[in-house]
Amino acid sequence: MKLNMTPAAELDHVLVAIADPTRRAILDRLTRGPARVTDVAEPFEMSLAAVSKHILTLERAGLVRRTRQGREHILRADPRPLRQVAKWAARYERFWNQRLDRLEAFFAQKGQGQ
Amino acid sequence: MKLNMTPAAELDHVLVAIADPTRRAILDRLTRGPARVTDVAEPFEMSLAAVSKHILTLERAGLVRRTRQGREHILRADPRPLRQVAKWAARYERFWNQRLDRLEAFFAQKGQGQ
Repeated sequence: MKLNMTPAAELDHVLVAIADPTRRAILDRLTRGPARVTDVAEPFEMSLAAVSKHILTLERAGLVRRTRQGREHILRADPRPLRQVAKWAARYERFWNQRLDRLEAFFAQKGQGQ
Repeated sequence: MKLNMTPAAELDHVLVAIADPTRRAILDRLTRGPARVTDVAEPFEMSLAAVSKHILTLERAGLVRRTRQGREHILRADPRPLRQVAKWAARYERFWNQRLDRLEAFFAQKGQGQ
């Protein structure tokens, strides 16, 4: 599935996956090392089914990989798709640098700044 | 509203806002210069109401600012919240560098690589 996605569709999946704080916490947990589904679910106050659904969303985005060792399902983080996110956000960096002073002056003048 | 948000909640709003391709296209349009709501809506094959809803999501994330000039509503991109996204993704950069070779070897061995 992942191979047939256009980069934009893949970016959508990755952004949707990381937009949820529980999924970011799961990803964080897995960057510290591989873990079983039950280990990943343990710190969350939600059902195993709910955590499994979050893991599936991460798998669809290519951020988590699952392997089977006998009867155990082992999960591993694969942060490679996050490069696309970093790349996408970096496109605006030039814009930040060029326009930030102008923007701040504009909103200060309008009295609508933060 | 935005001022009272914790950084994590703000990151949620920003990630949800940019997870949609229409909203990324609107943001792209506005980085080229300020525009009226109707101008922003013009290239999209959807109702003005649907586009307005997308714009509201971008405003809630702090990515778009609206000012009134007489009867006109002028929209401007404010990419500052994207720094948080870039910062969040960059946290995984160390992980990429350290683990990428090991990950690739692992998935190649399992025959489950891309």
